[in-house]
Amino acid sequence: MNDSVYMAELTWPEYQRRVAAGATIFLPLGATEQHGPHMAMNVDVVLPTGVCERVARNVGGLVAPTVPYGYKSQPRSGGGEAFPGTTSLDANTFSLVVRDIIRGLGHDGVRRIVLVIGHFENAWPAVEGLDLGLRELRRDGIADMQAMRLEYWDFVRRETLDRLFPGGFPGTELEHASLLETSLMLLLRPDLVDMEKIPDDGPATFPTYDRFPVPADFGLPPSGVLARADGSSAEKGALLMQDHVELITAAVRKEFSL
Amino acid sequence: MNDSVYMAELTWPEYQRRVAAGATIFLPLGATEQHGPHMAMNVDVVLPTGVCERVARNVGGLVAPTVPYGYKSQPRSGGGEAFPGTTSLDANTFSLVVRDIIRGLGHDGVRRIVLVIGHFENAWPAVEGLDLGLRELRRDGIADMQAMRLEYWDFVRRETLDRLFPGGFPGTELEHASLLETSLMLLLRPDLVDMEKIPDDGPATFPTYDRFPVPADFGLPPSGVLARADGSSAEKGALLMQDHVELITAAVRKEFSL
Amino acid sequence: MNDSVYMAELTWPEYQRRVAAGATIFLPLGATEQHGPHMAMNVDVVLPTGVCERVARNVGGLVAPTVPYGYKSQPRSGGGEAFPGTTSLDANTFSLVVRDIIRGLGHDGVRRIVLVIGHFENAWPAVEGLDLGLRELRRDGIADMQAMRLEYWDFVRRETLDRLFPGGFPGTELEHASLLETSLMLLLRPDLVDMEKIPDDGPATFPTYDRFPVPADFGLPPSGVLARADGSSAEKGALLMQDHVELITAAVRKEFSL
Amino acid sequence: MNDSVYMAELTWPEYQRRVAAGATIFLPLGATEQHGPHMAMNVDVVLPTGVCERVARNVGGLVAPTVPYGYKSQPRSGGGEAFPGTTSLDANTFSLVVRDIIRGLGHDGVRRIVLVIGHFENAWPAVEGLDLGLRELRRDGIADMQAMRLEYWDFVRRETLDRLFPGGFPGTELEHASLLETSLMLLLRPDLVDMEKIPDDGPATFPTYDRFPVPADFGLPPSGVLARADGSSAEKGALLMQDHVELITAAVRKEFSL
Amino acid sequence: MNDSVYMAELTWPEYQRRVAAGATIFLPLGATEQHGPHMAMNVDVVLPTGVCERVARNVGGLVAPTVPYGYKSQPRSGGGEAFPGTTSLDANTFSLVVRDIIRGLGHDGVRRIVLVIGHFENAWPAVEGLDLGLRELRRDGIADMQAMRLEYWDFVRRETLDRLFPGGFPGTELEHASLLETSLMLLLRPDLVDMEKIPDDGPATFPTYDRFPVPADFGLPPSGVLARADGSSAEKGALLMQDHVELITAAVRKEFSL
Amino acid sequence: MNDSVYMAELTWPEYQRRVAAGATIFLPLGATEQHGPHMAMNVDVVLPTGVCERVARNVGGLVAPTVPYGYKSQPRSGGGEAFPGTTSLDANTFSLVVRDIIRGLGHDGVRRIVLVIGHFENAWPAVEGLDLGLRELRRDGIADMQAMRLEYWDFVRRETLDRLFPGGFPGTELEHASLLETSLMLLLRPDLVDMEKIPDDGPATFPTYDRFPVPADFGLPPSGVLARADGSSAEKGALLMQDHVELITAAVRKEFSL
Repeated sequence: MNDSVYMAELTWPEYQRRVAAGATIFLPLGATEQHGPHMAMNVDVVLPTGVCERVARNVGGLVAPTVPYGYKSQPRSGGGEAFPGTTSLDANTFSLVVRDIIRGLGHDGVRRIVLVIGHFENAWPAVEGLDLGLRELRRDGIADMQAMRLEYWDFVRRETLDRLFPGGFPGTELEHASLLETSLMLLLRPDLVDMEKIPDDGPATFPTYDRFPVPADFGLPPSGVLARADGSSAEKGALLMQDHVELITAAVRKEFSL
Repeated sequence: MNDSVYMAELTWPEYQRRVAAGATIFLPLGATEQHGPHMAMNVDVVLPTGVCERVARNVGGLVAPTVPYGYKSQPRSGGGEAFPGTTSLDANTFSLVVRDIIRGLGHDGVRRIVLVIGHFENAWPAVEGLDLGLRELRRDGIADMQAMRLEYWDFVRRETLDRLFPGGFPGTELEHASLLETSLMLLLRPDLVDMEKIPDDGPATFPTYDRFPVPADFGLPPSGVLARADGSSAEKGALLMQDHVELITAAVRKEFSL
Repeated sequence: MNDSVYMAELTWPEYQRRVAAGATIFLPLGATEQHGPHMAMNVDVVLPTGVCERVARNVGGLVAPTVPYGYKSQPRSGGGEAFPGTTSLDANTFSLVVRDIIRGLGHDGVRRIVLVIGHFENAWPAVEGLDLGLRELRRDGIADMQAMRLEYWDFVRRETLDRLFPGGFPGTELEHASLLETSLMLLLRPDLVDMEKIPDDGPATFPTYDRFPVPADFGLPPSGVLARADGSSAEKGALLMQDHVELITAAVRKEFSL
Repeated sequence: MNDSVYMAELTWPEYQRRVAAGATIFLPLGATEQHGPHMAMNVDVVLPTGVCERVARNVGGLVAPTVPYGYKSQPRSGGGEAFPGTTSLDANTFSLVVRDIIRGLGHDGVRRIVLVIGHFENAWPAVEGLDLGLRELRRDGIADMQAMRLEYWDFVRRETLDRLFPGGFPGTELEHASLLETSLMLLLRPDLVDMEKIPDDGPATFPTYDRFPVPADFGLPPSGVLARADGSSAEKGALLMQDHVELITAAVRKEFSL
Repeated sequence: MNDSVYMAELTWPEYQRRVAAGATIFLPLGATEQHGPHMAMNVDVVLPTGVCERVARNVGGLVAPTVPYGYKSQPRSGGGEAFPGTTSLDANTFSLVVRDIIRGLGHDGVRRIVLVIGHFENAWPAVEGLDLGLRELRRDGIADMQAMRLEYWDFVRRETLDRLFPGGFPGTELEHASLLETSLMLLLRPDLVDMEKIPDDGPATFPTYDRFPVPADFGLPPSGVLARADGSSAEKGALLMQDHVELITAAVRKEFSL
Repeated sequence: MNDSVYMAELTWPEYQRRVAAGATIFLPLGATEQHGPHMAMNVDVVLPTGVCERVARNVGGLVAPTVPYGYKSQPRSGGGEAFPGTTSLDANTFSLVVRDIIRGLGHDGVRRIVLVIGHFENAWPAVEGLDLGLRELRRDGIADMQAMRLEYWDFVRRETLDRLFPGGFPGTELEHASLLETSLMLLLRPDLVDMEKIPDDGPATFPTYDRFPVPADFGLPPSGVLARADGSSAEKGALLMQDHVELITAAVRKEFSL
């Protein structure tokens, strides 16, 4: 019928064939979260899904449906839960979702899974969900499941960052709704970016600790954009995407001997 | 930026404006589940999302991201978990997801929510998730949230069914991957339907009880298609969609005085 | 000592003997729920227990203690939680109860279980509890447990319904505290029915969706009786009981080769 | 209709009237557990229910449906889970059941509850369930619920024990399936006691600690009867019941100013 | 490096060696709880840890880190949660902590564990945690873990109690912050006892039931000391400690054939 | 009695006085985890406790009992769970422990809490536990609790790192059991460090992703020491401690206006 890399776009017999042939499954873990006044709230869904699609194509894998609700946004990495629209799950809920999906895939015969984090705060509950899923699979007699877990933004060449940030890369944590994400969105969904609305209230100046509740003077830009987004472009997005896809493809091939 | 009815395609300030203006939020509850050898496994995501999009447009509402993993498929209504690709959540996991989303929306100021079931088995864990979410909101001081919960396929005119099923409508439970769903998919995503692959092994002939594990002679067609799918067409899908959208729109307007 | 079919009325050595001999265990899943101004609140305990007792006798099985608290009553099928006396469990609680009982029975050596739903809303959390229980048993090395799950009211002959409802059967969902349940109670516990108190405010006229909270004009009769109960009689109850017992006995014999 | 003290034997309007009049609710917490080769496994259901019925009648209260599955039997107090037929819940499950019932009763307007333990091992998970239930009620704005929690066997006069145990009372922990419980069963359900089957392998000689798994030489009588049951009689049961009912009645009246 | 009996004071290779050599692990289960105006709130941590240290030395075992937060204090055994500083866990939380520790130790190769209760209320959630931990280990293929569970205060000779309580021993439940605990603290941490502050408001005069919330006239001494503490001395503590250590050592040796 | 900064070393009346006076509570969140062949496994307990003790003294605060079991060690930050002795909690368990402690302290009247992470992997489940605890407190009517959450190692001056790492600081993640932790242990518990056993197999050379299960060639030094530990000294530990204490003290004073 079709040769989609999206698992859910296949019929079950076609999926069964691909799994029997050893397909690696990519599971993008996204979020519905504010990304500034200039971008839609689905950035953490669009970007990891887009990365997974390309890597899956490279390695003959499949992309499972992206989990669209993530773990709670934190002020220092995503602005926090107080922004309207940021709609998040408790950590236990998120981990159980990941656990159940891993378990279900394992029972289908999948033996290679890559969790791709598209939302910083998902990293740890994803680790837990994966651990719980693998534990359950072992108890179900499936001990040979192999998994990787990664943040796509860690797969970028030094020279690319140098080129994008001539003044020095401020680091991934502050890159919420900033140049990297905005450029990638301009590449993938330019209709969901409004360059006119890029704010000017950053970068964030956070202390080295969390505060609950967040005080007014905590250093959080009111826009929710933690670093600078101006200068974003689809071209920069393409450079980043090239790195993400090439480097993740290489890592997956190495780890899974594909 | 855009006038999308998809919540996650808005910026947070635009979402905030819409919520402040009283927007009703539609939450489609889908699944990743076998739908026969002739359709993709995302039917229960595509269809309720499509219905919600149209109704939301009618009433000035918004569609929250569709939950793409549902409660466990049952043999008598969806073929069951044994089909490869059917990837489901435990009931508690699913209910917690719904609870957390409801709670998050409530804290944003949303006061009108419509849960739209796109997968038969989601109905009850959705009820529980909604009940838990409303309970938590009341404990958080938000007592005026209003909600509806519905299966979109219940909103169809008698005459439409009579027209689609001249020989008599076999009932919704057996309509898994059958004429109704196939016709709606032909309307919304014809690229994900292969009419050549429509099977001929139905309809299912189930007893009036469940069996665990499912015995070989339980009456389940090997294809996973519970009733007949031949005769499906985009035109029939359009008739159905018109009913779903008009009748749900009317119900939402009535209940929420829109 | 005695030849009771009630498991809890046996000594443990006698129970051990019966299980070793292959006894099927029937687990009635009841509720404490309003059943109108004319009946006690234990209808959903009395009726499935009575059915199980008779079927167990037929097949040499045993009846485990009836779970007397069920899942939350819904307005469209039981009037809802707002009625005083309706005392229900969260879905997760109910499913864990079923899971634990299944696991315990399995560790005793039981290999055939029939869950008998006596309260509409129990159906889905019972499915989940059964699934969790069987999963745990498999992890404990017990992979050959067989189970059935059924609503007793689905086991009725067309001609019986025609005889009881000359004007046409309104369907099981509305049969809460109505003719079927009232007649069966008149058969089993006439002391708990007061025919003088049968209300006249039905039948319910529900829309095709749920509403939370339930609005005043939702179509729910104030009495909590969803259809009509007048005309109920012990004779009608006897006809129904005969169908329930004969048909469930046949189904259990067929499935478990008894 | 009837003047039952059993809540579930009332109609909802009658229950509503009694609650409005301030009725105290008694909740017996039982178990399905081996009670030796001479008694049925429902001892921990029959006895606390019988006690509650009598006390409720004295104080104008109501008896909620007895929870028939208890927390796991322990070797030193009930013989342990290894006995066939002993069918128990995890502690969390049991506590959630109690929590949900308390919450449901509180929302009905009940303000006085007495948890009556009929199974030694239920004591602590009942404490937790009660604590969780009261916590939830406070969060729901109901802060004036009052509760008692008691083991019925603690309500006995010194002179009664002296009369029943001329050689000295061995203590309640070993009284599993022994003289006290057997005598009370002879009073309430003599059809479920077979005096011929009273074993001769006790009393138990346990060390001052638990062992998992239980070793062969742990001191547990193979019959499951921890102390002596010979000499049991309905007369002795009547003496005990009189104490239980009088003393619990007095305590409830004192605490709840009835 | 060192020959500590405290597991956490070893390097991992040294711990590995000891476990490979068959070391028994002692897990003290403590609490942070009021112990009168004359003692610190860590009594239930100091005492079981001190006992475990000595017994572990006797049998070549190791002491795992003491769990410093216990299950909720009850009025009749510890004064209750209303005392400032008493900081407790829900039962489920406490049981999960024990479960996780047991599971972790089992996966390290530990096959003999002794849970030592230092806080009365921990007993039952510890039983549950142990049961859950052993169940998980069995599902992980580890079926030969052996465990004991004990309250250290049960290991005392009759003659010691007679010597310490010439007027008769009031029983362990009331011994909260009283002569036994105070004497043992004077032995182990005299800096944390202030004999001048020993109160005079006891002993408690509790009824044979619990009350929630605790009424003013419940018999609870305002100091939180349930029996008498005057007359406590390090010498008495030494006598008790000698009994505890000798008798627990003997029991562990017997059960684990050390 | 004493002027300890350790909450559990106070009597409850003294604790009550300090809380009434506005004492800030510091909660160290530790772990029992391998720290190489040259250090004990309690490093993540000793260090944050030592830091908290000094800061609490500075600001008139109190140190709650250190949680001695942490979230699961990860290969890239702590070597992982496969090392013997690393004994960890599931994320949900850990978060519930933190939640319960926060709730308990809040009900005592505490209004300022500082969670001090002593184990990298605790960071996220601590965030969740804190969020759940504050949520419960709000539902209990306590809305003015203020909290900080921090990793103590983030509080170090650039010049100190430059002095300690003339060749450049390798970053905190690899600092497991390495120079920083070893120096601090040499300061606080030199008896638990054996400089002779410092390994030579590091530093770790991890890829930018996780792998489950960890392959043999993942870059993990067999010793469990991720970076270099040679050159550690108590003097360096004193420099670090001075920074940690001064900078955390300043931050707490600023945030809580002390």
